[in-house]
Amino acid sequence: MKEYNHPAVRYFQEVSAQCIHYLSIDGVIFGFHQNQLKVLLLRWKETDAWSLPGGFIRKLESVDDAAQRIVRERTGLDALYLQQFHVFGQTVRYDQDATWRTINLPLEGIQWSERTISIGYYALVEYSKVVPTPDLLTDECRWWNLEELPTLLFDHNHIIAVALASLRKNLDDQPINHLLPETFTIPELQRLCETILGHALDGRNFYKKVMASGRLERLAERRQGTPHKAPFLYRFLPSGQQVE
Amino acid sequence: MKEYNHPAVRYFQEVSAQCIHYLSIDGVIFGFHQNQLKVLLLRWKETDAWSLPGGFIRKLESVDDAAQRIVRERTGLDALYLQQFHVFGQTVRYDQDATWRTINLPLEGIQWSERTISIGYYALVEYSKVVPTPDLLTDECRWWNLEELPTLLFDHNHIIAVALASLRKNLDDQPINHLLPETFTIPELQRLCETILGHALDGRNFYKKVMASGRLERLAERRQGTPHKAPFLYRFLPSGQQVE
Repeated sequence: MKEYNHPAVRYFQEVSAQCIHYLSIDGVIFGFHQNQLKVLLLRWKETDAWSLPGGFIRKLESVDDAAQRIVRERTGLDALYLQQFHVFGQTVRYDQDATWRTINLPLEGIQWSERTISIGYYALVEYSKVVPTPDLLTDECRWWNLEELPTLLFDHNHIIAVALASLRKNLDDQPINHLLPETFTIPELQRLCETILGHALDGRNFYKKVMASGRLERLAERRQGTPHKAPFLYRFLPSGQQVE
Repeated sequence: MKEYNHPAVRYFQEVSAQCIHYLSIDGVIFGFHQNQLKVLLLRWKETDAWSLPGGFIRKLESVDDAAQRIVRERTGLDALYLQQFHVFGQTVRYDQDATWRTINLPLEGIQWSERTISIGYYALVEYSKVVPTPDLLTDECRWWNLEELPTLLFDHNHIIAVALASLRKNLDDQPINHLLPETFTIPELQRLCETILGHALDGRNFYKKVMASGRLERLAERRQGTPHKAPFLYRFLPSGQQVE
């Protein structure tokens, strides 16, 4: 094998030596800001082509640890809430030739597997804490509104759709507080749930349901600076604790 | 590498050449018989040690196809309802040395990966149609009551627990009719749901709920030979069809 100096080539050589072949992780990193559900995407070097963050599993690294590492490197955040949601295992997941032409990397001579099985994880993160950070293969890392996604590389539009469906289905079990700042108002929480579900919720029923869960605590402070009567702030109790 | 004639060695040599390393599939095959939820297990050659059926993914085979193949070879059934439920990706999933001593295969000289990541699938099958069939490494294949499982090889007790939790959580979406014969009574369907959930259900509410689903059709026949008033038989409508 020839030695190349291109950083992408060195990256793939390292991956080929240290990581499990045929297997990857793709990370759907959800954030919530200004009443919009967002995902973190990467723009590949010298292209207008975007993809999800992803990476490979080291031979002696747990799959969960690999997912944490991959998401940490793109967000700067540690010990994130991650949920495995699906394995994408088709033999032909996307048009490989067209994709490699688009991202245009000098990878001749690199040993690479014929297909990649991808384990999908989604992360729920607090938007304001993330420092979007591109990787070796990309020029830019930024949030996109879920409703305004471009056509992504690989099968990543499909992967996001499956992640969102999984989050929707399990909304009641998922710690969506990770998507919010420490304190928030009930209308803000409702808007988050509506954004995930893709439809409006009845305010009175929503209030009853979240209060009945026993997981919220009302604080003494109120949100200032809103045009309406200042609403109370709430926080989620640490898991395990419940309001009596 | 030496050539051995032991069938297990030939099997692992083939797998090593044809399949993706570091990755396996484990299949939790659920059946329902005499009011008991059951799983299909294999007894390893010349041992009393049991495990789930499993196998490996060929380099150019989809993960779903591999799961179908593995379950087909143990049951004789094709095009089964299979559901991917979790990837078991810890670096140390069980005591490898102890496990290999127990199953006692002459595998010196076989190239094998340090760890295996397993993709878990469960299958919902009609008990009476299955022809339990051991594989090359096992002497016996038979149904076990879920409540009476022995300590299994590998981390397979854990895998079954995770499969059952996933089936429970998604019970309303899962086509549990695959676990029943073509026709059944409402009490039989209720008992199946109770067995999966692990607790009793109120008969009146259960009847209302399943009838409201619009997925059941009452037949003209009744179940004969029961000690009570002969109950009507029902069948699930083909998916997509609904009773008006």
